[in-house]
Order: sequence, then C-alpha cells, then structure tokens
Amino acid sequence: MTVLVLTCEEDVTADLVVASLHDADVPVVRLDPADVPGRADISTEYVKGEFRGYLSAGGRVVSMSGLRSIWVRRPGRPGARAAHQSRWLRAESAHALYGTLNSADVRWMNHPVAAAQARCKPWQLSVAHRSGFAVPPTLITTFPRVAREFATEYPDLIVKPVSGAHPSDPPMALPTSRIEPDTDFAGVAASPTLLQQRVPKRADIRLTCVGYELFAARKASDPDQVDVRFADDGGTWEPAEVPARIEQAIRGYLSLTRLAYGAFDFAEDSEGTWWFLECNQGGQFGFIQLDTGQPIAASIAAWLAVRTGS
Amino acid sequence: MTVLVLTCEEDVTADLVVASLHDADVPVVRLDPADVPGRADISTEYVKGEFRGYLSAGGRVVSMSGLRSIWVRRPGRPGARAAHQSRWLRAESAHALYGTLNSADVRWMNHPVAAAQARCKPWQLSVAHRSGFAVPPTLITTFPRVAREFATEYPDLIVKPVSGAHPSDPPMALPTSRIEPDTDFAGVAASPTLLQQRVPKRADIRLTCVGYELFAARKASDPDQVDVRFADDGGTWEPAEVPARIEQAIRGYLSLTRLAYGAFDFAEDSEGTWWFLECNQGGQFGFIQLDTGQPIAASIAAWLAVRTGS
Repeated sequence: MTVLVLTCEEDVTADLVVASLHDADVPVVRLDPADVPGRADISTEYVKGEFRGYLSAGGRVVSMSGLRSIWVRRPGRPGARAAHQSRWLRAESAHALYGTLNSADVRWMNHPVAAAQARCKPWQLSVAHRSGFAVPPTLITTFPRVAREFATEYPDLIVKPVSGAHPSDPPMALPTSRIEPDTDFAGVAASPTLLQQRVPKRADIRLTCVGYELFAARKASDPDQVDVRFADDGGTWEPAEVPARIEQAIRGYLSLTRLAYGAFDFAEDSEGTWWFLECNQGGQFGFIQLDTGQPIAASIAAWLAVRTGS
Repeated sequence: MTVLVLTCEEDVTADLVVASLHDADVPVVRLDPADVPGRADISTEYVKGEFRGYLSAGGRVVSMSGLRSIWVRRPGRPGARAAHQSRWLRAESAHALYGTLNSADVRWMNHPVAAAQARCKPWQLSVAHRSGFAVPPTLITTFPRVAREFATEYPDLIVKPVSGAHPSDPPMALPTSRIEPDTDFAGVAASPTLLQQRVPKRADIRLTCVGYELFAARKASDPDQVDVRFADDGGTWEPAEVPARIEQAIRGYLSLTRLAYGAFDFAEDSEGTWWFLECNQGGQFGFIQLDTGQPIAASIAAWLAVRTGS
C-alpha cells in the first residue's frame, strides 16, 4: 500500500516526510500534478461493474486500489508543464487527475475540498468562534461608515487581506499592518477590507496539528512586531504546553473543517490568553521542527502510513 | 426569514421561482455576486463574542441571522463589475461574500463546496457506480495504448470532455461526438480523453431532483442523435415514472454528493434500462417544466421556503 505525495520537485519539507516513510519501508510515489499529462500519466476505467484507476510517475506505476493515503503538499497546477498550454487542457487535466484520485478510497491530508473551504478567512473566524477560541474583534466590510465606527470603538487596529494571501504569493501578498483610527476609510467601498483589533502580544504561538497530535511552539515577541511571517528578529521557537481549553477548541475546529493538518497562529497576550489569528491548512512546519526538535515530519509520515484496511 | 437568490440579472428561470416565493409571501433578496462591491455590499463582524453579518442589495438590507436559505443559480463572479478590476479585488470580494454567507446557519441549494466537487465528471461516474446506477463502460486516460485497447473492445464509441464543460460556455464546449475505433489515438498523450461506449437509445431521460422530490421527463430519441443538448429535433418532453431502483440510486447519489438539487441525464436503451450519463448540479429546468407541466419551480420555492428553526 503506497503513500502518494502531491508536490513540486523543489520541496525540501516534503523530503523530510518522504525520508521518514522510507525509513519505515512504506512505499511512496511522488507526483507533481503539473507533470500531467506527459511526464506523469493517469488512466481510469469503469468496465464490467468495476472501477480501476492507476497512475504513472517517476518510472513507477501505482493502482488506486493500492493507495493508502494522499498528502497534498505544494502541488503544481495540472497541465502546467504541457507543451501546448490552454485553459481547456488545464481543466481537463485537473478533472482527470483529481477526479481519479477522489474516486479512490483513501485518507487525505488535506482533501482538496476541505482545503479550499478552509482557506476562506471570514469562515475561519466564524469556525474559530464556534469552536471556542478567543477571536479578536474583527470587521470585514465594504461600508466606509461601518469601518469608521469600528475604528472609533477599537482604535488600536490592524488591516490584513480578506483572502489570506500569503507572503509566498508576492503579487497577492500584503503584510498585516497597523492602521491609524483617523484613516480615511472611503476606499473600503472599492474593496472588502478586514480590520481587526491588534492584540498586544508577549509571544507568538504556532500550533501544528497532525491528525489530533499537537505541536505547540512559542516565540517571545516584540509587542510592536505585527506580522511574524515577515519578521527576521533572530528569536527562536521553543516547545510550549497546549492549554486544555485550546486543545478542546482545536478538536472542534478540525472536526468542523474536516482538516487532517493545520498550522494555527495565535497571539499570546500579557495574561497568557491565546488569541486565534488564523489557521493555514498548508502551513510550513520545517522551521518549527528545526528550532524545537519536535518530530512533526515523523508524525505526518506516521499519519500517512496508517493502513485503514479499506 | 428571507430567501437569498444568487444569480445574474437576466435569469428568467430564477424569475419563475421568485414569483412562487412572492405568491407564498416569502421575502426574497436577489443578489448578483458580480455587484460586490459597489451595487451590493456586505459587512461581517465578530465583536463581544457575537457574530453579526448583513448584506445590502437592490435597496434592501438583510441580516445573516434573518436568512432561511440560499439558492445559488447563475451567480456572477464577485468583483466582476467593479470599476477597477484586479485578481486581488476578485479574490478579496469572493472571500468576503462567500465567507460571510458560509458563516450563516442556513440551507443551501447547492452549497458551493458540494457544487464544485459534483462538477468533476470522473468523480460523478464513480459516485454513480457506487450509488447503483448503470454506467456505460468508460475510460479516461492519457495512455494511447490503453485508448486503442478500449476502442477494440468497445468499437461503438463516443468522446466527450472530462471536465464536463457545457454548451453554454462556448470556448470550453465540445459536443459529445461519435468516434471511429480505428482513430489514431496518439493525441491522447497530450490531453486526458474520455471515451465511453455509446448507448443505443430509444429515449433521453432528464430527471430533476429537488431535495428528494423527483421529476422525470422522457423524450423519444433518434438513436443516431448523440448529444441531446445540441439537438433541435422538435420532440417534446413527456412526464415519466421513476423506476424504484433509480429512485434508490438517486438517494444514494444525493447523499454522497451532498447536493440538494441535481439534473440527471440518462439514456434509455431498447430494454428500458436507464444508463447514467451525467448529473448537472446547476442544470436548467425551465424547458422541462414548459413541456411537461411539472411544477419544478414551485418545488424549488417550497424547498427554499422551509423554516428549519435554526
């Protein structure tokens, strides 16, 4: 039973997990969806009442019935490396690949449907709230008047993208930034804007969840540093205990979102409360493992290696 | 409690349902996501442990807690009508609108997540197979050799798009077409290809499901007409009985896909078997209602009008 890893070639984080799987003698096939069709190929058939699918990548052939799990890491876009590019080819390749994989009875980390929904930040806040996390007062609006009223009530403000675009996607990235309450909010009418009360924090928390295994890390913070993802302050991450209330909220969040993996960011305030900032369903973990020594890659490998008997 | 209809302006099919809702004194707000931001506006806030959201469209304001259901008909793309277009604005507008709506506790026809997954044709075939429908022998492949072998075994063949693009999306549309078994299949390597055994049919069946209410219609067919969606043969649709086995399979299909609405296409062969061709989660129903007199619009209105008490 094989583990399928969907990622691009130059993914050193995936290498850590693949090495763990090799150590445990678990067969692995690595496939970049951008290689379909051409360098990787697929075939699915429904004949005589049976479904049969298989794929070929890196000189190996694996049947859908021989898969135990699929890890979606940093997959390229299906069809993206074909000689003749077109919207048609990309749609056909995506449907053929993911349709085939979706028809297999396997565990996903994370299933593309769950992942797509989990990226939506207003929904994240609502799920976080329902799960029992502390969520800073937040407004998402296209009404300038409502933005002004919010800024009057919560003058210590930050602004960040609604769509949660990440610094790794530069044309769409915008760091979380502080904003003055007397800002002219007229521009809010032209594009939905997310305003949030700034949490004066003494530490950043990164909590990585693998199934229900939790790895919390903490880094003392300069209260004026707003977006840790852009920071390079030389601090290191230390392992941290997970408060019971947070653990319970995490279980609620993963169950509502049907995620098998999530990287949660919290701001720890001066009283020790962890405020939910976001959950990145595809968040990096290599830098945490490096600083803390927490065996996250091995934990992912173990999750992927489980045989469900299906 | 209001019904929210997400659709473009020139949608006469939606008009039928909206008229039924008006007749029943159910409040309706109609919103084209392309009007966000500007002609339609949204606001969501998480403040003091409470979530509050509302939207404004067509001079009406409705709160998320005052919604009973959302009907996704033919929505435009969020941000598409803004003065200054950008990928950024479209992403921000989509996340703000759908994130807000997703946070509301309402019934969806269909939920965007279920709809996106249900469009994938290889997955449709696999779900149809698991639900107990008769599925014609089908191959989706990028291997020319496998395509040749399939054509040898099933020489009476059709080819259709893997991604199921519809004739209403002309740049991506390709009618289902017959294909000769001695075709040169070398091109299969360049793009995934869907081959299916042609069903020699005596009738086309369109089965429209609204919740669990089923409306089947039948049209006698020229066995040589392959794609009924491109046909204009002057035949009319007549109401048809739904066989018990089909009804059971439909329930399985809707449960696996979490769809509240689906338009199923079947080919009826000379022995009366209904062969599953596809299920369009957003399929039209106006032409069926017009021919058969089946009250599909009223059924959709009744589904949307249900108060769940949440």
